[in-house]
Amino acid sequence: MKIYADIQSGNCYKIKLVTSILKIEHEWININILAGESGTASFLKKNPTGKIPLLELEDGRFLSESNAILNYLASGSSLLPKDRFEQAKVQQWQFFEQYSHEPFIAVARFIAKYLGLPDNRKADYQSKQEGGHKALSVMEKQLKITPYLVGSTLTTADISLYGYTHVAEEGGFNLVKYPAIQAWIKRIQAHPNYIGMV
Amino acid sequence: MKIYADIQSGNCYKIKLVTSILKIEHEWININILAGESGTASFLKKNPTGKIPLLELEDGRFLSESNAILNYLASGSSLLPKDRFEQAKVQQWQFFEQYSHEPFIAVARFIAKYLGLPDNRKADYQSKQEGGHKALSVMEKQLKITPYLVGSTLTTADISLYGYTHVAEEGGFNLVKYPAIQAWIKRIQAHPNYIGMV
Repeated sequence: MKIYADIQSGNCYKIKLVTSILKIEHEWININILAGESGTASFLKKNPTGKIPLLELEDGRFLSESNAILNYLASGSSLLPKDRFEQAKVQQWQFFEQYSHEPFIAVARFIAKYLGLPDNRKADYQSKQEGGHKALSVMEKQLKITPYLVGSTLTTADISLYGYTHVAEEGGFNLVKYPAIQAWIKRIQAHPNYIGMV
Repeated sequence: MKIYADIQSGNCYKIKLVTSILKIEHEWININILAGESGTASFLKKNPTGKIPLLELEDGRFLSESNAILNYLASGSSLLPKDRFEQAKVQQWQFFEQYSHEPFIAVARFIAKYLGLPDNRKADYQSKQEGGHKALSVMEKQLKITPYLVGSTLTTADISLYGYTHVAEEGGFNLVKYPAIQAWIKRIQAHPNYIGMV
């Protein structure tokens, strides 16, 4: 299988991490978003949204959206619970990630790290701080109760949230106020097949 | 089971529609977001994000995020494909809905319909139009090829996208340019167990 992605993107890094944990062989094809490589006609034929990561199966079928790809790759593995309610809980955290976490933390990080926090984006950057801290507080509340987001074992919900949380400081989010999140980050990093972002 | 929700919200209406299609008995508990009922201490104990819809099972466990609830309720039914790749495709469309569709179409509708398009939100409302049309174009492209988003049968992906698409005009999105979406809307409305938003 082929994975079209950019390792600097947290959404793409999630996929890298799950392929490392599950030892899934793949071809990694680098796509430079800032250089417009995800907006070319040939890429849009693969994915009409013009987004990465994108998975291409051996038979030529495509799957997009980082969390859908994660769950597809993890299907049948220990990273996806068998129980129907727990599976739904994994998805709950992943939808939370895409709606209430990524648009604040990943976007603030993008403005700071990749755009260099230009004057005309400062208000935008500031406006992301409150929502980002709200998302971190929701995670902290759960991680005070259970070692991983859905319970006692690592699932794709953790991989999803780890993607941008572990680099949240690059978006201006100081994690010192979130001891349970910090312990969870260390727990994930201690996985024998862990791979870092860079 | 109990469903905490507000029927005016497309995210909540999705749940109403799936319970109607699958004839799932439930108690519907109305929560008025505009009156702050999802932000009370007692509600935050149920769902720390302060969001609806929220599902409460008989044993007192809670599940939030509309699309996670949909997939939980539809598990084992015809609305969720058995095939692993098709299941991932359902999720792909649902993540697309939460990231690339809802934040434009639902938010523009909220500003226009519930806030009455006040002067200080007009720029915000306008800024949602381009992204909303981009999302509709991606749907139109797929619905020109297949009658439903994941293929030949109705899935929870369709329910997810139908929620706000069928009322997109209330957010200023004229659907006349999207004949395949219009045909798909009629196809869903023709389901024998269909229930409308109001």
